[in-house]
Amino acid sequence: MSETVDRAWMERVFEETKNWGRWGRDDERGALNLITDKRRAAAAALVRDGVPVSCARDFAVEPAVDNPHPALHMMTQAGDDCTAEAEGFESTTDFIGIAFHGMATTHLDALCHVAVSRKLYNGVDVTEVKSTGARRNDVMAARDGIVGRGVLLDIPRLRGVDWLELDVTLGPEDLEAAEREQGVRVEEGDILLVSKGRDARRREHGPWVPMDGMAGLGPTCVPWLHERDVAVLGSDGISDALPGTGIEDWFVPIHQCCLAGMGVHLLDNLLLEDLSAACAARDRWEFFFVVTPLRVHGGTGSPVNPVAIF
Amino acid sequence: MSETVDRAWMERVFEETKNWGRWGRDDERGALNLITDKRRAAAAALVRDGVPVSCARDFAVEPAVDNPHPALHMMTQAGDDCTAEAEGFESTTDFIGIAFHGMATTHLDALCHVAVSRKLYNGVDVTEVKSTGARRNDVMAARDGIVGRGVLLDIPRLRGVDWLELDVTLGPEDLEAAEREQGVRVEEGDILLVSKGRDARRREHGPWVPMDGMAGLGPTCVPWLHERDVAVLGSDGISDALPGTGIEDWFVPIHQCCLAGMGVHLLDNLLLEDLSAACAARDRWEFFFVVTPLRVHGGTGSPVNPVAIF
Amino acid sequence: MSETVDRAWMERVFEETKNWGRWGRDDERGALNLITDKRRAAAAALVRDGVPVSCARDFAVEPAVDNPHPALHMMTQAGDDCTAEAEGFESTTDFIGIAFHGMATTHLDALCHVAVSRKLYNGVDVTEVKSTGARRNDVMAARDGIVGRGVLLDIPRLRGVDWLELDVTLGPEDLEAAEREQGVRVEEGDILLVSKGRDARRREHGPWVPMDGMAGLGPTCVPWLHERDVAVLGSDGISDALPGTGIEDWFVPIHQCCLAGMGVHLLDNLLLEDLSAACAARDRWEFFFVVTPLRVHGGTGSPVNPVAIF
Amino acid sequence: MSETVDRAWMERVFEETKNWGRWGRDDERGALNLITDKRRAAAAALVRDGVPVSCARDFAVEPAVDNPHPALHMMTQAGDDCTAEAEGFESTTDFIGIAFHGMATTHLDALCHVAVSRKLYNGVDVTEVKSTGARRNDVMAARDGIVGRGVLLDIPRLRGVDWLELDVTLGPEDLEAAEREQGVRVEEGDILLVSKGRDARRREHGPWVPMDGMAGLGPTCVPWLHERDVAVLGSDGISDALPGTGIEDWFVPIHQCCLAGMGVHLLDNLLLEDLSAACAARDRWEFFFVVTPLRVHGGTGSPVNPVAIF
Repeated sequence: MSETVDRAWMERVFEETKNWGRWGRDDERGALNLITDKRRAAAAALVRDGVPVSCARDFAVEPAVDNPHPALHMMTQAGDDCTAEAEGFESTTDFIGIAFHGMATTHLDALCHVAVSRKLYNGVDVTEVKSTGARRNDVMAARDGIVGRGVLLDIPRLRGVDWLELDVTLGPEDLEAAEREQGVRVEEGDILLVSKGRDARRREHGPWVPMDGMAGLGPTCVPWLHERDVAVLGSDGISDALPGTGIEDWFVPIHQCCLAGMGVHLLDNLLLEDLSAACAARDRWEFFFVVTPLRVHGGTGSPVNPVAIF
Repeated sequence: MSETVDRAWMERVFEETKNWGRWGRDDERGALNLITDKRRAAAAALVRDGVPVSCARDFAVEPAVDNPHPALHMMTQAGDDCTAEAEGFESTTDFIGIAFHGMATTHLDALCHVAVSRKLYNGVDVTEVKSTGARRNDVMAARDGIVGRGVLLDIPRLRGVDWLELDVTLGPEDLEAAEREQGVRVEEGDILLVSKGRDARRREHGPWVPMDGMAGLGPTCVPWLHERDVAVLGSDGISDALPGTGIEDWFVPIHQCCLAGMGVHLLDNLLLEDLSAACAARDRWEFFFVVTPLRVHGGTGSPVNPVAIF
Repeated sequence: MSETVDRAWMERVFEETKNWGRWGRDDERGALNLITDKRRAAAAALVRDGVPVSCARDFAVEPAVDNPHPALHMMTQAGDDCTAEAEGFESTTDFIGIAFHGMATTHLDALCHVAVSRKLYNGVDVTEVKSTGARRNDVMAARDGIVGRGVLLDIPRLRGVDWLELDVTLGPEDLEAAEREQGVRVEEGDILLVSKGRDARRREHGPWVPMDGMAGLGPTCVPWLHERDVAVLGSDGISDALPGTGIEDWFVPIHQCCLAGMGVHLLDNLLLEDLSAACAARDRWEFFFVVTPLRVHGGTGSPVNPVAIF
Repeated sequence: MSETVDRAWMERVFEETKNWGRWGRDDERGALNLITDKRRAAAAALVRDGVPVSCARDFAVEPAVDNPHPALHMMTQAGDDCTAEAEGFESTTDFIGIAFHGMATTHLDALCHVAVSRKLYNGVDVTEVKSTGARRNDVMAARDGIVGRGVLLDIPRLRGVDWLELDVTLGPEDLEAAEREQGVRVEEGDILLVSKGRDARRREHGPWVPMDGMAGLGPTCVPWLHERDVAVLGSDGISDALPGTGIEDWFVPIHQCCLAGMGVHLLDNLLLEDLSAACAARDRWEFFFVVTPLRVHGGTGSPVNPVAIF
C-alpha cells in the first residue's frame, strides 16, 4: 500500500465508509440491515450435522491482569439452606453482575458504545447516551438476535502458528490470503469472525495486560470491511490491534469506523478455538451463527454466548 | 381421569418418570440428551422465511408486584463524560446485575435449581450446590446452547380468549386439544412452549402478585411430558400453575418433576406474543429454536433471549 | 403566618436563606462549617452515661412498597464451603450492594444530591455531577464524619400520639412547641432530628407508598432552619412532607433549600424510636451524635449508622 | 521467649485465651462486653479539641494487585438527566456495591468471619453461617456502634522509619516498647490500633500483592492481647503478618484467636496516617473512637469509616 495511513487518511476513510443515512435517518440497526431474511434462510441451510459450538468464554469471575473488574456470581440460596417458603420444594438461586465491556468477557458492542468526534452511528450526538441509559442506538436494535451466515478466518492456521504475536497488525491482504487458503469468501451481510489464537497464547503464557499488545486488524482493513459489506465483525480479541495505532484521534479505528461509521456491531473476546476445530474438521469455514443479546433498554451491549451450528 | 392426584400419586409419578441413570450415572445434561444432532439438523430445516422472533421480555429493571427484586442496569460512563483515557475515542459503558430467578425475567432453569427431598437430578445431593456455586448440574450443561425444534401450544387461542384466567390449571387433554387444533404433535426431543396469554393480561390489567394465581400446567401433565419425552419445557409463566397444588410436599410438581426427576430444563417467563403471532400468520407451530445461556460455572441458570427462527 | 406560601414566596425564601459564598466560593462543606471544633468538644461533654444508641434502620433487603429497590446482601462464602485457600483457616464472606437513596434506608444526602434550577449548593452547575461520579459537592465533604450536638424534637410525644398521620405538615410553631415542651433549644451548628413516629406507624399498619403521604416539615420551616443555623437536619422520614407541596417547582422545599441553598446535609429515614426512648428516660433531648459516611469519591451520599451517645 | 511457637503451642494458647462462655453461652458480642458504659463515658472525656480524624481509606473502586475485586460505585442518575419525575426537583443518585473483606477496604470483621476447626466464637458451628446469611455471631452484635477508648501504637515511629518492611513480625515486646515510648498503656476494654506504615509504603512503592508479605503481629501477641483484654484490634494491614505463620492449621493466628477464640472484633485496612499525625501533634495516643457498622442482618462485617475524636 503506497498510501500513508495517517490522520488525514483515517478521516477520509471514515467519511467514505460511513453508512449514515443509508438505511434511513432514524435507523439504529446499521449493517444489521444487510442480514436480510433471505440471507438468514440461506444461512440456516448451511446446517448439516446439527452440531452447535459455543463461541463464548466462561463468565469471567476471576480477577486477572486482563480482567481488572471481575464479573460477580453470587449464590443467594444454596443447598445448605434451600427449603423455600413453600412446602416440599427446595430451590437454589444466584445472582450475576457484570460490567461486560471488559477484555475478559464475550460481549456484543451496541452501536452506542463508541463515538467519533462525539457522534454515534447515523450522526446521533453522544450525549444521547445518558447516565440513565442510551436513548438511541442501544442494544435493542439486536433484540431479535443476530442470526446469519458466519465466516471464520483463522490467521494462525494460515501462518502455521498457534497464535499471533502481540504486535501483529493484520491488513486486508491477510484476510484475503485466509479466504484463499480456506476456500471461502466474505460476502455482503456476513458475520465475519477473525481468529488470532489469543486463548491458545493465554493458556500457554498466562494472561497479559491487553494494552501491552494484542494482535488485531489494522486501519487498512476498514475500506475492505466496507467494500465487503460485512454485517457484524468479531474476534478473539477486540478486532482492533492494541495498544492502538498511534494515529492522533484514531486510537482503535476498527471500533471507531465499524460502530460509529458503518454501523457494524462488534463481538469482542470470542472464544474461537472450538469453532476453529469444528471448521477444520469439516474443512468448511461458513456456518449458521446466532447471537442473542439480552433485551436491555438503553444498554450499550450485552454479554452473549454466540453459537455456531454446523 | 379417575385417579386421585394426591401425595401418594405424586410420589409414584415422580419415581416412574424420573430419568436418573438413563444417560449415565454422572450425566448432567438430562433430557438435553434427547436433542440429538440429527434432530437439531432436522429442526434447522424448518427455517424457510429467515425471520427471527425473540421470546424474551425486556430486562426487568422496573419494580412491580411481580418484580420485587428488579434487575440493575447502570451506566458506568455516559455521553456526559465519555472521553476515554486514549485519545480520540469516546466510549460509553454500562453494568447489568440480576437475580434472574424472578417472575419478571426470561430465564433458563439449570437442573440444580430445584431438588425434591434434597436430591437433584440424577440423585445428586442438594448440598452439592454450595454457597460458592453449584458443583454439579449447573448451567454449563447447556454451554453450547439449546438448539432444536420448538413447538408452541397456544391455549388462549384454542379457547378463543386473550388470556387464561389466573386459576386455570391445564391437563394433558388441553395440550392434546391444542395439538389437534394447531395440527402439530409434540415429539421426543422437542422444546415445548405453552402460552397462557400472561403478557396480554398483564398489559390489560397490570401486574399482579404471582402467588395470587397464574395459569399453568397441573400435575397430570407430568406423565404426559415424560411419555412425549420433551427435552425442554417453557411458558410465559413458570409452567406450573400458581399458587401451587396444595398437595403436601408437591408445591410445583412441574418444576419438581421436570428439573429434579426427568432432567428437563425449564424456560420461565418467556414472551410468547410475538411468537404466537408469527406462528398464526404461517399456521405453522413448529420452528427452529435457539437458547444460549451465559457460561456461568456453578450457575443455577441464566437470563436468556430465546429466539425462534422461521 | 399571613404570608401566602406560593412559588414567589419560595423563590424569595430560597434566595434569602441560601448560603452560597458564606464560607468561600469553593466551599463544599456548607453548614458543616458551623460545627466548629469548639462545638464538637462541647457536644462530647454531653456524654455522661456512656450509652450508645443507633439511629439506623436495618439494611433493607426486603422488598416492600416503600422499598422497591431492595438492598443486596449476598454471601460469597458460607459455612458450607469455607475452607480458604490457606490451611487451617475457615472464613466466611459476603457482599453488600445498595442504591441507598431510597425510602427504606438510613442515609446521608451529600450536597450534590439535589439541585434547584440546575444549580447545586454554592452555585455549582448540576452537570458537574457526571455519570462517572460527582466532581463537586460529593460526600467526601463529610469524610471525617459529622460529629456534634444532636437535638431530637419528638412531635408525636408533643401531641400525645404514637405517630403523626400521613397528611401532617409541620411548621416552625410545632418545632418551637416541642422545644418548650422538652426544655431544649436548637442552636447554631446543631444536628436537628425531628421524629414523626414513622416506624411505629409502619409496625402497626405495615408499609405504605411514601408518595401517598408522609408527615414532614413544610416550607415555612425553611426560614426557621436558616435563622437557627442548623448544621444538619434529619428525620425518620425524608424531612419533607409528602406527597410534596403542590407549589410549582417546589416539590420538596426542605430538600431543595437545605441541600442546594443552605448547604445543610440531610439524614433520611433514621430510626428514632430507640433514641426517643433514651431521651425520654433521661428527660434530656440533646446528645453527642456521630455520623460516619463511607469515603466515596464522587458519591451523592452514603448509607450510614448514626449513633447518639448519652 | 524460650518457648517453641509451633502447632501444639498455638493450640494450647487458643484454648487458654478463648473467651467462650465468659459472657454467657449465647453471647454474640464477645469482647465488646468489655466496653462498659463507664469506660465509654470515660473515653468521651478524652475529647478536648473537638477534632475528628477519619481512619478509613477511600472507597476502593480502582483495581490493583491489592484490590482484585474493586468496589462498585455507579451513578444511577447524573446531572445530564436529572429531572426527577416530580416538577422542580433535580436529583442525582448512585449505587455502591462491595465485597468488603478485601485488602483494600477499611472494614470491621464480625465474629462469624473466621472459624477454627469449624467453630466460631462461643463454640458456634460454622455451618450456622448459611448461604443466606449468618444466623449467629453476625455484625448486628455491633449494631449500636463500637464506641470507646482508642489507643494507637505506632511502630514505625518507634523505630524511626516511615514503614515496616514486609517481612516484619511483631511481638508483645514491640507493643510494650511502643507503650513506653509513647507513654500510654493498653488497658482492658480498649480499642487497640497498631500502625505499620502500610500506606506510606504503598504511596512510595505502589501496591503489592499482600500475600507477598505484610508486616503484622505474630502469634506471640495472642497471650498478650488476652492478658490486656483488648476489646477490639485494628491495624493498617490485617493485624496478622503475611504471608502467614507457616504453622500448620494456624495461618493467621491473630484472626483465628481474636475472632474465633477471644471474641475480639477486628478492624482491617485502616488508614492510620492522619491519626498518627494527630496523636503525634498532641503527644497523646489515646482518643475517643467510634466505629458504626451498617446494620446488616446475617452480615460477616461491614465497610466502615472509623473516626477518632480528639
